[in-house]
Amino acid sequence: MSTENNKKNVKRANVNSKVKKTSANSKKTYYKAKSNSNTKNAKSAKKYSKKPVQKVPVTPLKIAFLGGLNEIGKNLTVFECNDDIVIIDCGMAFPDGDMLGVDLVIPDFTYLEQNKDRVKGIVITHGHEDHIGGLPYLLSKVNVPIYGTRLTVGLIENKLKEHSLDHVSLHAVDAGGTVSLGCFDIELIHVNHSIPDAVGVAIHSPAGTVVHTGDFKIDCTPMSGGMINLSRFAQLGDKGVLALMADSTNASRPGYTSTEQTVADSFDTLFRRAKRSRIIIATFASNISRVQQIINCAKKFDRKVAFSGRSMVNYMNVAKELGYLEVPENIIIDIDALKDYPMDKIVLVTTGSQGEPMSALSRMAYSDHRKVSVGAGDFIIISANPIPGNERTVGNVVDELLKRGCEVVHESMYEVHVSGHACQEELKILHSLVKPKYFIPVHGEQKHLRKHMDIALSLGMKRQNIFIGDIGKVVELTDDYMKELAPVPAGKVFVDGLGVGDVGSIVLRDRKHLGQDGLIIIVASLDVYDGHVISGPDIVSRGFVYVRESEGLLDEVKTCALDILEDCAQRNIHEWGVIKNKIKDDVAKLILQRTRRSPMILPILMEV
Amino acid sequence: MSTENNKKNVKRANVNSKVKKTSANSKKTYYKAKSNSNTKNAKSAKKYSKKPVQKVPVTPLKIAFLGGLNEIGKNLTVFECNDDIVIIDCGMAFPDGDMLGVDLVIPDFTYLEQNKDRVKGIVITHGHEDHIGGLPYLLSKVNVPIYGTRLTVGLIENKLKEHSLDHVSLHAVDAGGTVSLGCFDIELIHVNHSIPDAVGVAIHSPAGTVVHTGDFKIDCTPMSGGMINLSRFAQLGDKGVLALMADSTNASRPGYTSTEQTVADSFDTLFRRAKRSRIIIATFASNISRVQQIINCAKKFDRKVAFSGRSMVNYMNVAKELGYLEVPENIIIDIDALKDYPMDKIVLVTTGSQGEPMSALSRMAYSDHRKVSVGAGDFIIISANPIPGNERTVGNVVDELLKRGCEVVHESMYEVHVSGHACQEELKILHSLVKPKYFIPVHGEQKHLRKHMDIALSLGMKRQNIFIGDIGKVVELTDDYMKELAPVPAGKVFVDGLGVGDVGSIVLRDRKHLGQDGLIIIVASLDVYDGHVISGPDIVSRGFVYVRESEGLLDEVKTCALDILEDCAQRNIHEWGVIKNKIKDDVAKLILQRTRRSPMILPILMEV
Repeated sequence: MSTENNKKNVKRANVNSKVKKTSANSKKTYYKAKSNSNTKNAKSAKKYSKKPVQKVPVTPLKIAFLGGLNEIGKNLTVFECNDDIVIIDCGMAFPDGDMLGVDLVIPDFTYLEQNKDRVKGIVITHGHEDHIGGLPYLLSKVNVPIYGTRLTVGLIENKLKEHSLDHVSLHAVDAGGTVSLGCFDIELIHVNHSIPDAVGVAIHSPAGTVVHTGDFKIDCTPMSGGMINLSRFAQLGDKGVLALMADSTNASRPGYTSTEQTVADSFDTLFRRAKRSRIIIATFASNISRVQQIINCAKKFDRKVAFSGRSMVNYMNVAKELGYLEVPENIIIDIDALKDYPMDKIVLVTTGSQGEPMSALSRMAYSDHRKVSVGAGDFIIISANPIPGNERTVGNVVDELLKRGCEVVHESMYEVHVSGHACQEELKILHSLVKPKYFIPVHGEQKHLRKHMDIALSLGMKRQNIFIGDIGKVVELTDDYMKELAPVPAGKVFVDGLGVGDVGSIVLRDRKHLGQDGLIIIVASLDVYDGHVISGPDIVSRGFVYVRESEGLLDEVKTCALDILEDCAQRNIHEWGVIKNKIKDDVAKLILQRTRRSPMILPILMEV
Repeated sequence: MSTENNKKNVKRANVNSKVKKTSANSKKTYYKAKSNSNTKNAKSAKKYSKKPVQKVPVTPLKIAFLGGLNEIGKNLTVFECNDDIVIIDCGMAFPDGDMLGVDLVIPDFTYLEQNKDRVKGIVITHGHEDHIGGLPYLLSKVNVPIYGTRLTVGLIENKLKEHSLDHVSLHAVDAGGTVSLGCFDIELIHVNHSIPDAVGVAIHSPAGTVVHTGDFKIDCTPMSGGMINLSRFAQLGDKGVLALMADSTNASRPGYTSTEQTVADSFDTLFRRAKRSRIIIATFASNISRVQQIINCAKKFDRKVAFSGRSMVNYMNVAKELGYLEVPENIIIDIDALKDYPMDKIVLVTTGSQGEPMSALSRMAYSDHRKVSVGAGDFIIISANPIPGNERTVGNVVDELLKRGCEVVHESMYEVHVSGHACQEELKILHSLVKPKYFIPVHGEQKHLRKHMDIALSLGMKRQNIFIGDIGKVVELTDDYMKELAPVPAGKVFVDGLGVGDVGSIVLRDRKHLGQDGLIIIVASLDVYDGHVISGPDIVSRGFVYVRESEGLLDEVKTCALDILEDCAQRNIHEWGVIKNKIKDDVAKLILQRTRRSPMILPILMEV
């Protein structure tokens, strides 16, 4: 196993040698995590003997939030104690509808750049994009070691390779293990989520222990990896937890999240119902457990499995290579080999469960896929729920597939998807095990954070012991108090193509204006000596109205601009800013009056 | 009552005089609707004696769909028999996210313009925008009389006034009444929906009777107007219905839609819970029954009611004036008077339940409302479900309100909203009463139409007797057959400001391109004789990158363009199309390579 982990630049963290020995003069005032029998990988967990709490001096713990609060995605939390900084997660977010042309959103790393010498390492809770997607951008500025479980590290390695970041120090740690970073010991605790090898962390610091769940749910019968290590959370709770930071994504949902096992039953029913049809299943590329279920079901029903979509192929390769996907021999076929099998011997697993325009499933729906064309005889299962904001695009893809004669299963009538996040009752279980002094809801929009607060209040926590944060906010904790400090720089940095941060609010405002109303360009060449018009003004419009329909209007614009230019020349006004503004104002007024629209007006003057 | 209806240009349809007498040589082969006791307004319904069915000659009925199929909104159905055309509904739709800058979408009226002499009238089922919003645009091209119930006509009148269409012939008809238009008799049948005075129609034609439900649900305890006239649907079914066209909006939802009464109970609970807070309730302006409940509840809890939002005020004025809103004395106050009352004596009813950026609630959430500022002490109820596609914007508004300290009720935990459309069991009831020969699901996307078909199949209807249509499709019906005919022109016409139809696919494509990637303009003045560059090229960019960050790149663009221009001049290439294309291609390549982006490249050349 260690050879497997040592290859390439993935190193197995030499956990024990890195751990500071607990000694009499240690500043640490907490009890180290005991290894516990409930975790398969507990062998690297450490044992500590009980030491009395040293009350003086109190070393406070600072927690700064650079992402994941009041938003879904780009999770990044900063822990500071003494002079050491540790980062938990470094994710990206997908752009909102009004972030035109933006590919992805990452946290503002200014604070980490300013303090880069103090950053001891980054611990990643699991391999989803909203937890690892920001790494390439942070690592190009701050080079620090990264720690995570094997699958997580495998997925990060794959991502860094795409960004040509080959020399990052990556360390695989089993759940149950602990990483020492400065005065921190970060213990990885196995949790259930919609990707294998997910962990929560116990951050043991001189100020006390903070439990951060990462993304989690309680699944008593997961596909792999065993149930969440609730005992460990209980042990920590018994020993005293300073603060709990817990996943709020599903805090508005009552009850429990269903086990992944229910999906297996649904697949069984649906595979039977599909009869002689080809089965196509869309799901998240990262949902390795789901794909495992599909493979299991395909084996049972004697079908071959093919993958479509770049990210799907990528994820499956990493998962297979690291042993997180059990694949019976000869069951996977290449997408090009689909034609060699009858329809009822095929399951095609594809991306596009969110209706993303360039995804494999969308291409199939709009007859734009190079290798797969769908129609009657296709049985399509969308094994995911639309993320808020994607309902419309998903709905459109479903409609297109139906129009082509496909059968489509996309609703809740069959349980073809379960969430990866804990619902209200699961959160209550976790809270009651961890019994924290302070509570900080994380991972969610305001409504989720508030609901999570309500849950904590209902369990008897006091309001003043709960902190509802925001990105940029900083909170300081000791056993005696929790208080907010001055904020640090934080925000949304837009990535567009190769550009990071060069698309800001002005560019977005212009894009929005251009996209909504189009533009009218007015170009004229002026005499360098007297300012009179030598050529033009020419009027060019794009995205405004279909040109043939607007000839009369554009002639009026031309006359209006020419009058202004000649009037300015006559009156010896040669300040181009003044002239341009006058053209902008008068033309805008004319257009608004005639059309009730406000295109961008762009006068360009040239001297000849 | 008749004086009330005769004022302005709203005329009460002189129903009886317009009805053709049923005589021996009548081409009509059906039985006219009997007046029925279940409808309050039944006094204008007519009585006919039973006549034997004349089987020969068979006059087929043609139905053309210009809107409402494979889309939500812009409902418009055309019925043709002999040489007569009757239109049912004329709605608008809201633009999809990819229809940049478009204000609203209306049907393509080409087919109606081409046949305007044959159009006898328009019957409107109820006063929602997706049923009346297209009228001003159709009426400016085809002037025909409009028929609907009193409230419907009142709302249409209000709308036409805004469009300065004063001379349209508007006729109020009570539910239960019948309108004769050419060889058609259109009978209005009372149904329940989320606006009072909604009707379905029985279209009695020489080919037989078609029942079109309009938007409907079965509400046994509605706020006003009484329960849907199920007996009349049953009578029609007993006499024989050629085809049923029924609302598919909720065909995917099992069970029954709750009665509006459940909302009353929820409001009661919430008004109690609000205690000393100001109550703000957002709902659809058109949902007059909902506002009635709010007024009732306000009275009970001794609070005053104010309205915010232009459309809310408009709707309430019409509803109040026509007696569809029962308002106790002194309960309504002006929004300016809010400050004169303590917080716990106020209910503010507002638009913005869909998170629309310019709506009153959004303005409150983003501190942009001129008259109302919200915070702790505000208890806000969003009494509507997000329409698919609006989940994100509604969620954002909720978050902003929460951040300001408001309490917000927005989920399904309290039943603060019920749908206006029939669910599966209600549809089954209607089908089993009407017992049509043919079935055409209407009002819905493909997924809804298919589900509705499944319901009909489950009730024993044969697949070949069901027609799943699309806009532009035409179907011909007689008692003996149903067949599809050649399509008619149909589509989405975009309204942007004052322009109708001048924003087409090319303009939208340009808007999308500009919005996603911005643009780079390259302007140069060329010598009219030899084509050499006299001034420029100047580079102007908008929505591309923040200029200061891209100076080096834009210099490269300049050099690239200059090289091409001089090279062309040297080689005597003066074809501007050729030169521009070369600049476009080379600059695009350069930008893509440097930034992985594809802004619009716009070369503009001038001769001097």
